[in-house]
Amino acid sequence: MARLRVGLIGGGGPGSFFGGVHKRAISLDASRELVAGALRSNPRAAMQAARDYGIKGYPSYQALLEACLKGKEQLDYVTIVTPNHAHYGPARAFVEAGIPVLCEKPMTMTVAEAQDLARLVKRKRVPFVLAHTYTGHAMMMMARELVHQGEIGEVRKVEAWYNQGWLATALEKSGQQQASWRTDPKKTGLSNCGGDIGTHAFMAATWVSGLAVKRVSARLNTFVKGRVLDDDFNVVAELQNGATALITATQIAIGYKNDNGFRVFGTKGSLEWRQEQAESLLLRRGAHDEVYWQGANFGYIPDSVKPYLRMPAGHHEDFFEALANLHLSMEFMIRRRRKERVPAPFAHPGVDAGVAGMRFVAAAVASSKKKGAWTKV
Amino acid sequence: MARLRVGLIGGGGPGSFFGGVHKRAISLDASRELVAGALRSNPRAAMQAARDYGIKGYPSYQALLEACLKGKEQLDYVTIVTPNHAHYGPARAFVEAGIPVLCEKPMTMTVAEAQDLARLVKRKRVPFVLAHTYTGHAMMMMARELVHQGEIGEVRKVEAWYNQGWLATALEKSGQQQASWRTDPKKTGLSNCGGDIGTHAFMAATWVSGLAVKRVSARLNTFVKGRVLDDDFNVVAELQNGATALITATQIAIGYKNDNGFRVFGTKGSLEWRQEQAESLLLRRGAHDEVYWQGANFGYIPDSVKPYLRMPAGHHEDFFEALANLHLSMEFMIRRRRKERVPAPFAHPGVDAGVAGMRFVAAAVASSKKKGAWTKV
Amino acid sequence: MARLRVGLIGGGGPGSFFGGVHKRAISLDASRELVAGALRSNPRAAMQAARDYGIKGYPSYQALLEACLKGKEQLDYVTIVTPNHAHYGPARAFVEAGIPVLCEKPMTMTVAEAQDLARLVKRKRVPFVLAHTYTGHAMMMMARELVHQGEIGEVRKVEAWYNQGWLATALEKSGQQQASWRTDPKKTGLSNCGGDIGTHAFMAATWVSGLAVKRVSARLNTFVKGRVLDDDFNVVAELQNGATALITATQIAIGYKNDNGFRVFGTKGSLEWRQEQAESLLLRRGAHDEVYWQGANFGYIPDSVKPYLRMPAGHHEDFFEALANLHLSMEFMIRRRRKERVPAPFAHPGVDAGVAGMRFVAAAVASSKKKGAWTKV
Amino acid sequence: MARLRVGLIGGGGPGSFFGGVHKRAISLDASRELVAGALRSNPRAAMQAARDYGIKGYPSYQALLEACLKGKEQLDYVTIVTPNHAHYGPARAFVEAGIPVLCEKPMTMTVAEAQDLARLVKRKRVPFVLAHTYTGHAMMMMARELVHQGEIGEVRKVEAWYNQGWLATALEKSGQQQASWRTDPKKTGLSNCGGDIGTHAFMAATWVSGLAVKRVSARLNTFVKGRVLDDDFNVVAELQNGATALITATQIAIGYKNDNGFRVFGTKGSLEWRQEQAESLLLRRGAHDEVYWQGANFGYIPDSVKPYLRMPAGHHEDFFEALANLHLSMEFMIRRRRKERVPAPFAHPGVDAGVAGMRFVAAAVASSKKKGAWTKV
Repeated sequence: MARLRVGLIGGGGPGSFFGGVHKRAISLDASRELVAGALRSNPRAAMQAARDYGIKGYPSYQALLEACLKGKEQLDYVTIVTPNHAHYGPARAFVEAGIPVLCEKPMTMTVAEAQDLARLVKRKRVPFVLAHTYTGHAMMMMARELVHQGEIGEVRKVEAWYNQGWLATALEKSGQQQASWRTDPKKTGLSNCGGDIGTHAFMAATWVSGLAVKRVSARLNTFVKGRVLDDDFNVVAELQNGATALITATQIAIGYKNDNGFRVFGTKGSLEWRQEQAESLLLRRGAHDEVYWQGANFGYIPDSVKPYLRMPAGHHEDFFEALANLHLSMEFMIRRRRKERVPAPFAHPGVDAGVAGMRFVAAAVASSKKKGAWTKV
Repeated sequence: MARLRVGLIGGGGPGSFFGGVHKRAISLDASRELVAGALRSNPRAAMQAARDYGIKGYPSYQALLEACLKGKEQLDYVTIVTPNHAHYGPARAFVEAGIPVLCEKPMTMTVAEAQDLARLVKRKRVPFVLAHTYTGHAMMMMARELVHQGEIGEVRKVEAWYNQGWLATALEKSGQQQASWRTDPKKTGLSNCGGDIGTHAFMAATWVSGLAVKRVSARLNTFVKGRVLDDDFNVVAELQNGATALITATQIAIGYKNDNGFRVFGTKGSLEWRQEQAESLLLRRGAHDEVYWQGANFGYIPDSVKPYLRMPAGHHEDFFEALANLHLSMEFMIRRRRKERVPAPFAHPGVDAGVAGMRFVAAAVASSKKKGAWTKV
Repeated sequence: MARLRVGLIGGGGPGSFFGGVHKRAISLDASRELVAGALRSNPRAAMQAARDYGIKGYPSYQALLEACLKGKEQLDYVTIVTPNHAHYGPARAFVEAGIPVLCEKPMTMTVAEAQDLARLVKRKRVPFVLAHTYTGHAMMMMARELVHQGEIGEVRKVEAWYNQGWLATALEKSGQQQASWRTDPKKTGLSNCGGDIGTHAFMAATWVSGLAVKRVSARLNTFVKGRVLDDDFNVVAELQNGATALITATQIAIGYKNDNGFRVFGTKGSLEWRQEQAESLLLRRGAHDEVYWQGANFGYIPDSVKPYLRMPAGHHEDFFEALANLHLSMEFMIRRRRKERVPAPFAHPGVDAGVAGMRFVAAAVASSKKKGAWTKV
Repeated sequence: MARLRVGLIGGGGPGSFFGGVHKRAISLDASRELVAGALRSNPRAAMQAARDYGIKGYPSYQALLEACLKGKEQLDYVTIVTPNHAHYGPARAFVEAGIPVLCEKPMTMTVAEAQDLARLVKRKRVPFVLAHTYTGHAMMMMARELVHQGEIGEVRKVEAWYNQGWLATALEKSGQQQASWRTDPKKTGLSNCGGDIGTHAFMAATWVSGLAVKRVSARLNTFVKGRVLDDDFNVVAELQNGATALITATQIAIGYKNDNGFRVFGTKGSLEWRQEQAESLLLRRGAHDEVYWQGANFGYIPDSVKPYLRMPAGHHEDFFEALANLHLSMEFMIRRRRKERVPAPFAHPGVDAGVAGMRFVAAAVASSKKKGAWTKV
C-alpha cells in the first residue's frame, strides 16, 4: 500500500509546539508521510518553516489547496494545527474540496461555526477526525469498548477531571506565549480552562460512556487576579439516560501536571483510568480488582483496539502513540474508501463530537453566569 | 497517672459492630479502660452484653448516669455508640451532669437538637469529641497542620470525596442490617449517602482547610429502585473565604470500598490524602513531589501530631489507631483540666463541627429539592 | 468464654518498646487480658514497671513461675519479650511447667538452645508461638493459603527481602539504645542484619512457600566502619524441592523504612506482597493482574483467614492487628485444648520455625566466612 | 542542519519486530531519516523488504557498504538489528570503513569478538552506540547524573533486576519464533536469560552507578524441561569499589512483563527506578520521599538530560522515545565532529559497555558451572 501523503496547516516556526508533535505522530508509522504544509500565517515565514521541516512549503493554506485542486500537489489528508480561531477557515475549505481533515481541538470558535462545519462534512462525506489525543490511548479505547459491550451494565454516574497547576500564578504577565493566548478571550473564545482542558474531561465522560450531555449546572472561577476568563471549571451534568456526570478541570492545582482521567460507575461494575498512568485500566466488578495493561500480545485486548498497539506488554506506548492512533484512524478511513484491506477504524471523535464539545462549553459558561442554573446543551 | 475509666452507651449485642471497635480503641493505650456500660436498649440484653464484654452492666443509660451521680460509679467520660436517633438523649444527659462525652457521628437527628446540644456543652464547659474517625489519622492531622501553618498559602479549592459500592444493589431487601437502617428515613434522617459518608467528605473539606461552608448547590440521586433516600450525593460548595469545594459521595461505585480522601489547592501548594493509603501524605509545591510517611521518629512530623503516633515509620497504624486518637484527644482534655502533664489535645472535631455537619446535610437536601439552587448552610 | 489471662516476661521500663506493642496486641480483642508480669531483670524496677502497666508485678520470671506452680497466679500463657539472650531461660522454664509460650524472635541465642527447646515443647505438647509478626498479616496468610491450595502450582523461585536505612550511619556511637544492642555481638549473637531482619525475609520465603531451605550461599557485608557484625545480608538459597530463593536484607538503604516483602513464582502463577502496603495481595495468573484487599466481608478471603479479620474492607488493619493475630492463634490453640468452640488456629510459626531460623542464620554466617561456599542448613 | 541519513542492517521481513521499532525511533525527530538498508540475509527478500519500507534496498550489507565506499550511497551512520550472531560482521566492516554504528545488544557472540571490535572502534575513532534502550529513558539518565554529582554519596549496594514471565512454559515447542531462537544455544550463545535480559540488569547496575563489576558468584537455573540454556539468572557481584550488586533476571515469573529496574544505595541517599513506570524517579535522602517526573520544562531536570526530552511534564514519553534518545546521542556525536552546534551527547553505553556485558555473562555462566565460585569478570 502506498504511503499516505499528509499536509500540515499551521504548526511551524520557532514558538510552535504542537506542529512538531503531529509531525512525530504522522511519521510514527511507516504508512504515512508529511510532505507539504502552509505552516505559518506570514507567507515568508511559512516558506522558511517548511524548509526547516524538510517538506514542500506553501505561503498559505489557500495556496496549498489550490495546488491540490490543480493536481500539482497530491494530499491524502490535511492536519490543522493553527490557533483556535484559524481552524474553521481551512477546515471548511479542504472539506469543501473533498480532502479529509484531522483538526486540532477545539474544532471552531463558535457553536454556529461548528454546526456549519458538521453539516458540510456530512454532505461531502469526507473523513474528519478531531484531535482529542487522549482518546487515542489504547486503554481509554478499551474502556469505551468494555462499556459498549455491557461489561459494567447501565451507566449511572461518571466522574471526569483534568487538574493542572501551571496557571496558578499570573504566568501570562511574564509574556509566556502559551499562557498569554489561552487567557486572552479574543484568541481563546468563551472559556480558558473549560475550553482548553474541561473539554478533555467532557470528551472522556461522553466518549467512553457513549452518552451525550443533556443539561449542565456550572460554577466557573477566576482565581488569579487580572484574568477575564475562568481558570477553574466545575460542571454537574445530566447525561441522556439520566446519569449524573461530574466534569471538572482546574489550572490552579499546584504540582499537578496533566492529571486527567475518568471513572465510570455502572450497574454491574466500574472503570477507572488516569492519563498519567495511561498504560493500565482498572475494572472492578465486585470481587477483586482487575488491572489490565496495554500490550499488543495480550489476549484480553479487544479486537477493535489491537491494530492500534505497536509494542508487546510491559514496554509502554504513550503520548505520541496516542496521537498517532488518531492519524491511524484517519488512515484506516481513507484506505477503506479505496477498498484497501485495513482494519476497521475505531470510533474516534469526529465532527459531531466537536459540535458537542462547543455546545457543552457554551452551556457551562451560560449556566455559570446564571449562578449554576440548569442549562440545556 | 491513673487510668481513665470509660463508659459505653450502646454498642452491645451480637449484631453490633462499632461498639467493639470503640472498645479496641479505648484499650489501645494502657491509659484508658472500658469499665461500665449500658449497651443495649433492652435492659436484660444490656446486662447480658456487659457480661460478654466483661464490664459492669447497667440496664439503661439513665441507670448508669444515676450511678455516677450517686457516686456508685466513677466514669471519666462516656462513649455514645447508639443508633443515630439515640445520640441526643444520652449526650444531653451526661453533658448536663458534667461528664465528658465522645459521641458517634452524626451528632443528632436534627439541626435543632445539634444546636441545643452545642449550647449546653458550651455552658457546662464539658469536653466533647465527635467521632469523625478519619480525622484521627496522623497524616490527615498533619495535613491540617500544614494548611494552618500556611505551607500551601491561601486555600482556593478543595475536593473531598467518599466512594463506596456496597449499596449498588438493593441490599436492604435481603435484610442486611447495616443496609436496612441506613436506607430507612425513620432511622437515618434526611439523607442516607450524604449523612453517612458525605459528612466525612464534608469534614475533610472543612476541618483540613479550616474553612466553613457558606452555601451549597446540590444534586442528590437515588439510583436503586425502591429507595426513598439518596444513594449518591454531589455538592458544589462555597467556603467562607470564597473558595470552592467539591464534596461528593456515592454508594453505587461497584468495587470501591472506602475511597475517602481530599485534595486542597492553595496559592502556594497542594495537599492530597487518601484514607485507603492513610499512612502517606502528598505535598506539592511546584517542584518534585514530596511524600511524607507517618512514623513517630520522623523529624518532619509536627510536634502537635507526634503524641498521636505509636510506631516508628514503616509499620503502619491504621483504623483502630485513628479512632484511638480521638479517645486520646479526649484523654488529654480531661487530664489537662486536672493539671496532669499531658500534651495539648489536637483540635479534633467537637460539638461545633457536629452542628456544622447537620446543617450542611440539611442544606444539601434542601438545595437538591430546589434543583440545585444555592442554599445557605 | 472466660477471658484468657496473659503474663509478660520482659518489656517493661522507660526504654522498652515492644512490651507496649504486645500489651496492645493482647488487649486488642476482648478475649485476652494482660494480668501479671516480670517486666525487668532488676527486681525493684520490675515491680515499678508492673505498677506503671497496672498489672500484678513479680521481681523475676522465676517468682512468677513459682506463683503459677503454687496456684497463686493463674496464667493461660506467657509472652516473652526479653532481650534475645534472655528468651531461652524463661521459655524453657514455662514450657517445662506446661504453660504455653508466645516468644519473641529470634527464639534463642544458639542453634543448640533452639533444638533443646523444640524437643521440650514437643515432649510437653505445649502450645508455642514464635512472634514473627508479619505472618499475622491477613494477606500474607492468604498468600500462604493460596500456595497451599495449589493456585500458583509448584514453586520455582522465591524472592524475599527486607530493606531498612536506619543503620546507614554509626548510630550506635550516639548511644541510641536500639542500635547499640543490635550491633553488639554479645547481645545480638552471630549476626545483626541477618538475625534481626534477614530472618523475617527467611520466614516469608519458607512459611509462605511451605518449603524449607536446604543449602545457602551467602555474602554478608559490614558497610559502616567500626562495626563487627553485618549490616547487609545476601543469601542465595536452595529450597527442599530444588527451587531457588533470594533472601536479602540491608540496614543501609537510606530512606527505606520497613520495606519487607516477597514474591513467589510458581508453575501456574505468581504472588507478590509488601509489608508497607500490607492490605493488598497481587496474584498474577497470566492474564490481567488480580489485586485482593483484606476485609472481613470479602467472599474471596479463605475460611482459614476469616477469623483473623476485624474490619470490613477498605478500613485497614495493620501492625498491631498482625501481632494480635499471633496471640489469637495462641488463644485458639489453648481454647481448643479445652474443647471450647473456636476456629482452627492458623499455622503460624512455632518452635520448629524458630529452629529453622536459627540454623539458617548460622549457615549464612558460616557460608559468608567461606566466601559464599554452599553450606547445609 | 541537514537531516542525517541512516542505514539499516537487518530488521526487515514479516517476522521481524525490532527493525520497525528502530525505524520509528530514527524518524521520531525530524533530524534523522532512514534512507537505505540491507534488511534480510536473503538478497531477494532484502530487496522486497526495502520496498515495503519505502527505502533504497541492497541485497547485502556488503553491497550497501560498497555503495557507500564508492560514494553512490551516503550514510551518516548505520543501525544493526540482525540476529545476535550477525552483529559482529557488519559492525566490524562499517567501523573499518569509518562509518558510525548503532548496534543492537548483545554486541557480539563472544568476548573475543567484542574485544576485537572495541579495539577497532578506538583505533578508528568512530562513534559507536550500543542499543541498551532503557538507558535512553530520561529518568534513568537523571539517576546516573545524580549519582555522578554525588547526590547519594559513595555507592555501597546496587540491586538491579529484570523479571519476565513469558517463558514460564515451553513456548518454543509451539514454534513461537522469539522463544525459539532465544532458547537455542547456536543462535543465542552461552546464556538465554542472562544474555537477553540479565544484561539489562547488569547495564542498569553498572551504568547508573558508574562502577564496573570485578567478580561474580552466580546461580543459573533451567526450570522448563527440555531447555539447554538458563531461564533464570542470579548473580551476586562485587563492584570495583567493593560495593555489592545483586543482578537478577528471570523468564518464569508468570504475569511479569518487563519488570526491569534498579535501586542504588549510597552513603547519603538512595535512588529507585522501574522501567514499567519509567516517567518517575524516587530519591530518598533520609527525610521525605522525593519523586521526580520527567518533563522538558522542569527546573530540576539536569542540563545534560534536557535535550533528550520532547514533551512538557505530565505527558509521558516512553519506549520509542528512549530508543530515539540513543539515536539522538549518535546524532550529537556525529554533528559535533562536524562542528555543528548541538548539545553534548549523553554518555550512553558504547563499545566498552558492550565488552563488559559480554564478559559479565561469560563469567556468570562459568561461575554457575562451578557452583557459584567467585569468578573474575
